[in-house]
Amino acid sequence: MAELQLIPKGEFDRVAAADGDASLGLLADMCRVNALVAVKRAGSGHLGSSFSSLDVVVHLLWCELNVAGLGWDHPDRDIFFSSKGHDVPGLYAALHALGVVTTERLLRLRRLGGLDGHPDVGVPGIEANSGSLGMGLSKGRGMAWAKRHLGRGGRVVVMTGDGELQEGQNWEALASAVHQGVGNLWAIVDRNELQSDRPTEEILALGNIETKLRAFGWHVESCDGHDHAALTRAFSDLNGAPTEVPKALVARTIKGRGVSFMEHPRALRDGGGTYRWHAGAPDDEHFALAFDELVGRIDDGLAGLGLEPLRLEPVTSPEESPAVSLVGEPESGVGARASRMSDEYVAAAYGEELVALAERAPELVVLDADLASDCRVRAFELALPSRFAEVGIAEQDMVSMAAGLARQGLLPVVNSFASFLASRANEQIYNQASERTKVVYALHYAGLIPAGPGKSHQSLRDVSLLSALPDLTIVQPTNAAETRALLRWAVEEAPGSVAIRLAIGPSPRLIESPLDVREGCGNVLVDVEGPTLLAYGPVMVHEALVAAETLAARGLPLRVIAMPWLNRFDGDWLADELVRQDDVFVLEDHATVGALADALRRTLDSVGASTRMTAFGVEGWPACGTPPEVLRAHGLDGVSLADRIALGIGAKTPW
Amino acid sequence: MAELQLIPKGEFDRVAAADGDASLGLLADMCRVNALVAVKRAGSGHLGSSFSSLDVVVHLLWCELNVAGLGWDHPDRDIFFSSKGHDVPGLYAALHALGVVTTERLLRLRRLGGLDGHPDVGVPGIEANSGSLGMGLSKGRGMAWAKRHLGRGGRVVVMTGDGELQEGQNWEALASAVHQGVGNLWAIVDRNELQSDRPTEEILALGNIETKLRAFGWHVESCDGHDHAALTRAFSDLNGAPTEVPKALVARTIKGRGVSFMEHPRALRDGGGTYRWHAGAPDDEHFALAFDELVGRIDDGLAGLGLEPLRLEPVTSPEESPAVSLVGEPESGVGARASRMSDEYVAAAYGEELVALAERAPELVVLDADLASDCRVRAFELALPSRFAEVGIAEQDMVSMAAGLARQGLLPVVNSFASFLASRANEQIYNQASERTKVVYALHYAGLIPAGPGKSHQSLRDVSLLSALPDLTIVQPTNAAETRALLRWAVEEAPGSVAIRLAIGPSPRLIESPLDVREGCGNVLVDVEGPTLLAYGPVMVHEALVAAETLAARGLPLRVIAMPWLNRFDGDWLADELVRQDDVFVLEDHATVGALADALRRTLDSVGASTRMTAFGVEGWPACGTPPEVLRAHGLDGVSLADRIALGIGAKTPW
Repeated sequence: MAELQLIPKGEFDRVAAADGDASLGLLADMCRVNALVAVKRAGSGHLGSSFSSLDVVVHLLWCELNVAGLGWDHPDRDIFFSSKGHDVPGLYAALHALGVVTTERLLRLRRLGGLDGHPDVGVPGIEANSGSLGMGLSKGRGMAWAKRHLGRGGRVVVMTGDGELQEGQNWEALASAVHQGVGNLWAIVDRNELQSDRPTEEILALGNIETKLRAFGWHVESCDGHDHAALTRAFSDLNGAPTEVPKALVARTIKGRGVSFMEHPRALRDGGGTYRWHAGAPDDEHFALAFDELVGRIDDGLAGLGLEPLRLEPVTSPEESPAVSLVGEPESGVGARASRMSDEYVAAAYGEELVALAERAPELVVLDADLASDCRVRAFELALPSRFAEVGIAEQDMVSMAAGLARQGLLPVVNSFASFLASRANEQIYNQASERTKVVYALHYAGLIPAGPGKSHQSLRDVSLLSALPDLTIVQPTNAAETRALLRWAVEEAPGSVAIRLAIGPSPRLIESPLDVREGCGNVLVDVEGPTLLAYGPVMVHEALVAAETLAARGLPLRVIAMPWLNRFDGDWLADELVRQDDVFVLEDHATVGALADALRRTLDSVGASTRMTAFGVEGWPACGTPPEVLRAHGLDGVSLADRIALGIGAKTPW
Repeated sequence: MAELQLIPKGEFDRVAAADGDASLGLLADMCRVNALVAVKRAGSGHLGSSFSSLDVVVHLLWCELNVAGLGWDHPDRDIFFSSKGHDVPGLYAALHALGVVTTERLLRLRRLGGLDGHPDVGVPGIEANSGSLGMGLSKGRGMAWAKRHLGRGGRVVVMTGDGELQEGQNWEALASAVHQGVGNLWAIVDRNELQSDRPTEEILALGNIETKLRAFGWHVESCDGHDHAALTRAFSDLNGAPTEVPKALVARTIKGRGVSFMEHPRALRDGGGTYRWHAGAPDDEHFALAFDELVGRIDDGLAGLGLEPLRLEPVTSPEESPAVSLVGEPESGVGARASRMSDEYVAAAYGEELVALAERAPELVVLDADLASDCRVRAFELALPSRFAEVGIAEQDMVSMAAGLARQGLLPVVNSFASFLASRANEQIYNQASERTKVVYALHYAGLIPAGPGKSHQSLRDVSLLSALPDLTIVQPTNAAETRALLRWAVEEAPGSVAIRLAIGPSPRLIESPLDVREGCGNVLVDVEGPTLLAYGPVMVHEALVAAETLAARGLPLRVIAMPWLNRFDGDWLADELVRQDDVFVLEDHATVGALADALRRTLDSVGASTRMTAFGVEGWPACGTPPEVLRAHGLDGVSLADRIALGIGAKTPW
């Protein structure tokens, strides 16, 4: 990676001193530079949305809000946070410029002990956790209601995406804000007209947002979200609106603003209809182009204000292994992902097999909630558009729509991230299952990795959320071949609904698995006399094998079994492989509560086995960082596991 | 109960033969009579909403839709279902009149093997499961999308409540229907202006629904929902609207229509601002008044059409014990409940203690999602209106609002039914907890009982849905005193968030419990030498004691422990009471997956105990019926448990 340079805080102070709207535009571009550097160093992060919102963010923090003056813990402070959350690299850059976030921490975006990939209140200046969409207006209303109740000053300003408004909770919050007369709540819609990689009007048309907000009783203004004079007028209008009426600004913005080749609509044309700068770090060439363009324009602007050119500081903190993942990085941009579409990828195999299965299964239809690229169903959409339904960012609607499709005899395959689908649509999944129809739920990005996006995206509860549903089978394949086989089984053989957990990428090693699906049976990978370790998914099975190799080197044999079935077991297989075992260890790609170990304990207890089972998994809140960092932090990397197993062996097993 | 009379199917045929709008009004009143009888016999059910929607339902089924002619399994049939679901007694009466539901089954409303308290596709003529609000438009759109995709004829007509539109999922569905051009989808809003017991405009103002629906791109008509000539015109207008545009009718109706003292607004005035006919069966006196008023008007109408008076048939099927509950009946009407507000009631104790705690805890605020009476927080609302927030039927918004309140230092106590709160707002609860703030979640109507409302309301997954959340403690009190103590502990002592499960009513017996809260410890109720049975909540602890008494009579001693802590245990207590036990049985008021037994197995395994644990709980889908019927159906009544325990004892414990 090219040597990186950052704009130090002092430069922001120098520019801020030069008042006038021009300086605000410069400050925003300067934040863009630092956000770009932070994301480049992190290896991932959302630039498009950070850039579209940054003029508004800078205008709020430097001009409109009192928080920078009062301090981030003052009870009367104005509160600002972003509901969409993925624009946080821009906010981090602004907080760094204001001296709230240190340079060291800014350079540790998406790293352990650094800055979370999505907002977390553990970071100074962050007022709310977000990242899963659509909760911000409700939460902001709670803060504003509390301020009124406690007699505290200050407004609560919530930034939302435009696509984010597809999430139904927003409309609950909009109605309640009016009914409760919470007039100290402001909503700012970052109207950049692009979702993750396609226009909002293609994914799910929002139509006239102003009209909808007014129909819900809000006072609404709109303006160019990059024009600071217009923002000044708009905010002054909001301040003049009736006290008890909640206020909204629809800020017309440009996704990728500030870097010509990242700007919508040009970037969309360049990408052949797909926007590639929503997430992921640019390669060195594009980074240099973006950096130079921004710095060049800033220097021109400084000259225009009669100020010296920008003084950049080289990034001196030691170059650490960049956040390139063991198993592919989340949200690393369509372009970046496309190049990795190899058959070794669980996710890629899923997308390819889905298209293949569709030929044999005319009843198969695919549903998506604005994650078609990440969930690898874009190919299906292009190949079979009449059998693809896009519902926008609305997981509940997607699942209940699938229930309706299934009642008509179709077989819906429902796609989203595990963290969103299993939790937000949980009651809808229960309702669908209660109609005894069959739906296949594809839970993408399941497990601890990817860890860069942080806890809103890491799915460590999904198995527990689905485990008490009658007749639902939960599986997780270990490799690409097993992904194809289990998906085939789910579509063509499974009697009821199936949840298939999918890791984002491949295992660092190719893991052998039988070609045929053996229902409820595991796959013995290391067959030795010794305690047994069960694991599932490419990430954890790899760590399990590392643990076995580490222990073998110490002369301690460890059996390793890959177990793709998380809540259904073959009795005979269990009797042969586990019942006579004294010590069984389970490595969960999940919390230690509610997943494979619990299901095995239930089953072994029911047959009177006295097997002692120890579960390794995520305890507490998942850490944010690179895969190696996070696995180590939770003691789930192979070497740590080897030590824990050696310590954990009961008296029963002689070593 | 007075002897009941029903209107036989033949009478409906006779009236239907007399064409004209007058006959439709008569048919609707005749359905009201039979719905009234069915609810009276069931002991519970929703009359107000059934009566407000019945003119529309009758008009659709007898005039507008093709389904009665084509049959309920024809691919080209028009599909009708109600999203709100609790108006199903009216629909059952209509299906009975059309010969789809037998008289025997109509008379078994909310009874085992009869008609579910909320719609279930297992019942002939029922097209969709509903009962949890806000899913219908999404599901109906799925059906309509599938009809178009498969080239099938017929419309999909979804009835929604007006209060139901507060649920955000509706707005996801409304937007998608327009974007997807699903023009064969109709929405009919039963605009009766009342929620469970208060006006929509008081709970959460809906404003002008027509304007909102039009802002979302729908073709909207509105008319008097009891005027069949107006309904004819409105439906003809909808049929004439553009093919690809989804269509909505806002039907202005009167809740309780047809029975003068049940009609809004009179009933609201009589109830001093509270509507008491939303749910629950009328007493004998009110039943007779309602029955006579309806039959009298029908006979007048028949005379006006030159027809003979109504021929009623006495209900001859054997009088069974009516559905009066062991533990109080769900949704049995505010009036009915008020008389049962004794301190023996877990729920009543909760409501009273909440008010008492508020004096000592100024930061305590209470949130409600239109279940203030059922959740016993109406008293708090009246006593401390400035510390009470009503969000309407919007659980997600309620939880995220609570998260915002907590970020401002308040302590929100969040109320809804366990089945809705733990599932629909699951991701919002996770997001709140991830901010490390403290919120108390009151999960009402938790467990198998009440069983009358059916599976949409029975909460047998809530513990599993919350179990993998770090730092959340889950408790369920056994009696009123323990309810007060645990709520005090949750508010004043618990370090983090707490979920408190509450049964609707008391145990049939007063169960002793220590006055002080002993964190993580159970309460030994029967202390003998023998296998141990743990249970929680008034319903199951009572059955556990019955099991012990039954076994004692056979000379088989059974230890019984009430265990209010479902996911946190005191190590010393566990060591003293369980670790040395060979056979431990756990009686779950929950599915056998994901609750107390799983948590105990995890803990005992971690200390190397070889205790064999057997869990009794709900397997598969919960049955609908009276408490005794349903407990027996699942083998969870005391006598069945005694047999299962006697059989289940391992060789280890000598009996």
